[in-house]
Amino acid sequence: MSTALDEVKWDKDGLAPAIAQDAVTGDILMVAWMNRESLEQTLKRGEAVYWSRSRKKLWHKGEESGHAQKVSEIRTDCDNDVLLLKIEQVGGIACHTGRRSCFFQKLEDGRWVAVDPVIKDPKEIYK
Amino acid sequence: MSTALDEVKWDKDGLAPAIAQDAVTGDILMVAWMNRESLEQTLKRGEAVYWSRSRKKLWHKGEESGHAQKVSEIRTDCDNDVLLLKIEQVGGIACHTGRRSCFFQKLEDGRWVAVDPVIKDPKEIYK
Repeated sequence: MSTALDEVKWDKDGLAPAIAQDAVTGDILMVAWMNRESLEQTLKRGEAVYWSRSRKKLWHKGEESGHAQKVSEIRTDCDNDVLLLKIEQVGGIACHTGRRSCFFQKLEDGRWVAVDPVIKDPKEIYK
Repeated sequence: MSTALDEVKWDKDGLAPAIAQDAVTGDILMVAWMNRESLEQTLKRGEAVYWSRSRKKLWHKGEESGHAQKVSEIRTDCDNDVLLLKIEQVGGIACHTGRRSCFFQKLEDGRWVAVDPVIKDPKEIYK
């Protein structure tokens, strides 16, 4: 396993972008960052663990919200510098805004428009 | 339009990761980088234009291979720092290895295994 972890081309900060994709629908739910340790933890737990760049620490997705991500498959691209996680999104909500996906803003006539509904009020998620 | 372009949180190098997703199947085909100008060009052309970090110049995807990407929708995430392009992949091949998707390596028993077929020999693509 250590070989596969070392074959990822971590950037100068030791990070790689990681895409979380719904394993069934193919919807892209979020993009976060991983370092070597977070990928190792993800493999051990079977749930997504990222590196929080703002908090500068490992982030077991769902640790506060309960919205964990069960990982069924991990891929990397031809450059080995991006990770793709196929996941099952617990609670059906990946975004801290209470939406299913973080990619809810669509470019329409030169403006970013929030086109997807809030499923649950964030105040009810992060108590 | 300039407002929407300026609302993207370009990183310290002026870049943001851009995911190209098949608009019909939902398959993730590649991840590249965009700067403000490449996003502007993408909007003008209706085809994906990225910023090549290795060549340090704008890269109209398909300019050599013919494998352009027709863009039907552009989204950004809750942090405004990742772009998502829904595209039609001309020629059905996004990857320089001649595969449909750049994400052809799957983690299996601690090793990255190339699990998707080469559709066309790269020597036939880049003549």
